[in-house]
Amino acid sequence: MWQLHQFPLCPFSRKLRLLMGEKSVAYELVRENPWEGRDSLWQLNPAGRTPVLHDPARKVTLCDSQAICEFFEETVDRNPMISGNAMQRAEIRRLTRLFDESLYGDVTAPALHEKMKKRLILRQSPDGRVLREMGRLLHGHLDYIDWLVDTRSWLAGPTLSLADLACAAQLSVVDYLGGIEWKGHDQARDWYMVMKSRPSFRPLLSEKMEGLPPPREYAALDL
Amino acid sequence: MWQLHQFPLCPFSRKLRLLMGEKSVAYELVRENPWEGRDSLWQLNPAGRTPVLHDPARKVTLCDSQAICEFFEETVDRNPMISGNAMQRAEIRRLTRLFDESLYGDVTAPALHEKMKKRLILRQSPDGRVLREMGRLLHGHLDYIDWLVDTRSWLAGPTLSLADLACAAQLSVVDYLGGIEWKGHDQARDWYMVMKSRPSFRPLLSEKMEGLPPPREYAALDL
Repeated sequence: MWQLHQFPLCPFSRKLRLLMGEKSVAYELVRENPWEGRDSLWQLNPAGRTPVLHDPARKVTLCDSQAICEFFEETVDRNPMISGNAMQRAEIRRLTRLFDESLYGDVTAPALHEKMKKRLILRQSPDGRVLREMGRLLHGHLDYIDWLVDTRSWLAGPTLSLADLACAAQLSVVDYLGGIEWKGHDQARDWYMVMKSRPSFRPLLSEKMEGLPPPREYAALDL
Repeated sequence: MWQLHQFPLCPFSRKLRLLMGEKSVAYELVRENPWEGRDSLWQLNPAGRTPVLHDPARKVTLCDSQAICEFFEETVDRNPMISGNAMQRAEIRRLTRLFDESLYGDVTAPALHEKMKKRLILRQSPDGRVLREMGRLLHGHLDYIDWLVDTRSWLAGPTLSLADLACAAQLSVVDYLGGIEWKGHDQARDWYMVMKSRPSFRPLLSEKMEGLPPPREYAALDL
């Protein structure tokens, strides 16, 4: 069986778990703390990052969330998540990358640093200035998601796609780390509630990062 | 015709230009300075980054270098660059991402900041400490490329692939900005010379960033 090397709040592992859930691919979890820089993780992935998907029996290792998602898209027909014509597929990949890179860099990465790493590892208080800037940038991203939801059925077009999974994965980590202020973002909130209600999302909502409980509303299916 | 919005030292635009060159896709260049944050670029790409590929006649816009490379891989049969079985394609995408993300973050991004942005825009001197750390990390990446070349015909497997283009694109920018110390990296140097000799590479070697001439050896086809 596939072993997914990850930690509970890794947004890229969450994106992959949502995809594997939608495609009914079985896996078991192997806990990693990438910030410890352990040799075992670097040996599996020269980038030293999660997620890594490893099958010890077949001696196969896959790295990088997007490369792994493309792999399952090519090998598992069920519930295609990069579908449509070439232009539609380019739009799905553009948005997936926007969430993986810009939403992550602007919001999820500082949230993880200020609220997870400082609390659990560095034993420091979060920097209010960084958190305020993060909130401001999150607001801009939610505006863009509102606009996407207003103009399309799903974020990248007429069908649920990897872009929805990538965005929901990032937001779920931000939500875990302190909740999201949805005021003024009804469309984004409604879309996120639909995503949260999917069976593929359930395993994420019940998983906890030790020493860092989520807010009460994190796992609630209404807001 | 496609218009490629880019600047001469954008490594991701270079990766795309190499792919379009290999596939004989015609395009014209439109100069952008993403650091100026102009509305026109943000309107084309909500991530505010180059490359953007735009066709005004067809009113079509593609963003993100990887999404655009996948688009041409799907629509232009000539010279496939993500080929082989699903596992080989995953390896090509893993390495492409490693170069796009880690080699860029460790080496190209600080080189662009210290040697291009500080000189042309901020009018500051480069920080020697940052440059030394960059050199140390580049050495590690070249070690890994040596190992890849030792064990495979091309970086990701038996055929030239997008991973070779992505890696050569990053290194070409670093090389432009001050040369690469190849000592102890014969395999990586030989591979890079082969890449530099490809017709798809030629347009990059002759293009200059105004106010920032490359070293004399930059365009030379022997080292």
